[in-house]
Amino acid sequence: MTETSRKPDDGVFSDLILLTPGPLTTSLATKRAMLHDWGSRGQEMAAMTSRVREKLLNCVGAGQNYECVPIQGSGTYAIEAAIGCLVPRNGKLLIMINGAYGRRMASICDILGVDHTVDESPEEEAIKVEALHTRLQRDRAITDVAVVHCETTTGVLNPLAEICELVVARGKRLLIDAMSSFGALEINSAKIPFDALVAASGKCLEGVPGIAFVILRKDWLEKAGGSARSLSLDLYDQWRYMSQTGQWRFTPPTQVVAALDQALGELESEGGVVARGARYKRNCDVLISGMRALGFQTLLAENVQAPIIVTFSPPNQAKWRFEAFYNGLRRRNYEIYPGKLSKIESFRVGCIGNLGQAEIQGFLAAARETLDDMGFEAAAGTG
Amino acid sequence: MTETSRKPDDGVFSDLILLTPGPLTTSLATKRAMLHDWGSRGQEMAAMTSRVREKLLNCVGAGQNYECVPIQGSGTYAIEAAIGCLVPRNGKLLIMINGAYGRRMASICDILGVDHTVDESPEEEAIKVEALHTRLQRDRAITDVAVVHCETTTGVLNPLAEICELVVARGKRLLIDAMSSFGALEINSAKIPFDALVAASGKCLEGVPGIAFVILRKDWLEKAGGSARSLSLDLYDQWRYMSQTGQWRFTPPTQVVAALDQALGELESEGGVVARGARYKRNCDVLISGMRALGFQTLLAENVQAPIIVTFSPPNQAKWRFEAFYNGLRRRNYEIYPGKLSKIESFRVGCIGNLGQAEIQGFLAAARETLDDMGFEAAAGTG
Repeated sequence: MTETSRKPDDGVFSDLILLTPGPLTTSLATKRAMLHDWGSRGQEMAAMTSRVREKLLNCVGAGQNYECVPIQGSGTYAIEAAIGCLVPRNGKLLIMINGAYGRRMASICDILGVDHTVDESPEEEAIKVEALHTRLQRDRAITDVAVVHCETTTGVLNPLAEICELVVARGKRLLIDAMSSFGALEINSAKIPFDALVAASGKCLEGVPGIAFVILRKDWLEKAGGSARSLSLDLYDQWRYMSQTGQWRFTPPTQVVAALDQALGELESEGGVVARGARYKRNCDVLISGMRALGFQTLLAENVQAPIIVTFSPPNQAKWRFEAFYNGLRRRNYEIYPGKLSKIESFRVGCIGNLGQAEIQGFLAAARETLDDMGFEAAAGTG
Repeated sequence: MTETSRKPDDGVFSDLILLTPGPLTTSLATKRAMLHDWGSRGQEMAAMTSRVREKLLNCVGAGQNYECVPIQGSGTYAIEAAIGCLVPRNGKLLIMINGAYGRRMASICDILGVDHTVDESPEEEAIKVEALHTRLQRDRAITDVAVVHCETTTGVLNPLAEICELVVARGKRLLIDAMSSFGALEINSAKIPFDALVAASGKCLEGVPGIAFVILRKDWLEKAGGSARSLSLDLYDQWRYMSQTGQWRFTPPTQVVAALDQALGELESEGGVVARGARYKRNCDVLISGMRALGFQTLLAENVQAPIIVTFSPPNQAKWRFEAFYNGLRRRNYEIYPGKLSKIESFRVGCIGNLGQAEIQGFLAAARETLDDMGFEAAAGTG
């Protein structure tokens, strides 16, 4: 993996290694790409924007029938833009939910007044294709289906290929929230012929946060004129204007575009999505086996664990204080993420970003020291 | 003014000097503040966000009765968030228009279904307080008034103090689009008791683009729960969540926050809004007199010219080719902005950003050389 020093040379402080679902630890070159000013309507910004859009399309092997529309803001903005612009006024969206990001799509529908129905399944399980089948069978009004590829609520991976196959077979459209998987888990549009996909700059693409994007079928986009519920989040207008002028309708976060341009170049240099996914998988394997050796348990079964973020429960629930563990790790330069489960004590550790096994090993050593400080007895076989 | 070198040390290329309405030329220190990674939910980001909000409130001398709610995205996002959340469902917004940004507010109302009426006056004139008076007199349904402080369509400055006085006297609320004036033209909430104001990171605050914000009366904000037409652009929820957790609801552009934090520190070091406004005014005076000496004419009368951006028309309309002038200036390292007027040939030159008289003089020399290349005869008195 990249052995680039991540530390800038101004010596202000040593950045924490971010083991979170994003924003992530990025390469120094990606951050240094932001050391310039660009006019938002100049040719340099137009060239960068065009290059970024093309590279994003390449990530899913998309041909001429797909378009990439970037949008200013966080990933949620692009999810809202997609739902608000693409689900027809007389359509109905089925949201397959097994975590917080599925529920967020339902909230967006509630606020925008988009007709929808949900199918909610346990957070520690992958979505069942049979449940989707039943729903589509029963409710003939459904026109569109939405699913989260990797739910970072737990780290669970949903079976995208099977879901897509069924949705296509039933003549519906598929909208994928690929926020935390895009750039790391292969979504080849030839094999998984989705209709729309949403992701963002600051996750597995290893850019900095501030831009999200929708990759979608051109024919769906072409029908979306005038359907937006928002001026700012109008995908169709953004696409039309960008196609005609090369520019963003409203001021883009110019430095974030530049960082994404650099980060996409680094993704290519690494060997593309498959190579990056393999690095994250190695990180994830080292993380899980190391944490198990320290006495932690993983929430998910191995066959549904995405190599993105892992939910752990502590060796001893009664003795556990998340705050102490979190702060001990921070003192040792690692940032982890709290859990999102209500029933059991848990926390999450990401394995994505400009990191390799050395950083994961460093984290494991820090975790062990922190457990010692907290008075946990050393687990067998880790001494 | 700051004599900081703006050039980063990676030698990739020499940045253009941006004489535009923003994104602007920023200091190297502001850009270098982005050379770090932060977790979006860590204490460093919470501290920066809190500091930024407080400094923004300080810019308008706001007391306890105001709140600052930052929002991811461009300035237009925050305008849409403000209109969508703050104008009550049974309210009616009067938009005083004398340029494209006023018209954009009307478009937002159209899309969101916000009841509104507009008063449109010529773009080269400031809004007339008498016209506002008449409107408020005639249409008793109006509850809220919106106005653009400095319309960058032409660079015209609207009479904010008089407008605010009238709106307050009539018991209405005032929403100000201060996008291109905030940080440079004083808007003291004690003297101009506005109800809400919208601005962004990448204009006269000399940060990088990617964040906008609304400064507004707390009692108006408190009433706005559940009124948003969007999940992403829900000002009230953003404020509630940020107040409770110190965090942004959705991933913020972390590096943009850091740059704004640095840029606001530099604003303080410069002596605050009044000192910055004075620097821009000197830039503007040097620009206008220099351009007049080259034979250009200004569109606006002096008393309505804001020291932000200036609209010029060329010495000889028939001989004029904007493209040639623009490209000649670019070759000499200066980026200007096209005009937005339909009737006459025009272009715009900004006088804001991390720039002083040296850069304006450099631009004037480049303009002179470019005119020579284009075959314009040297104007009298310019040596």
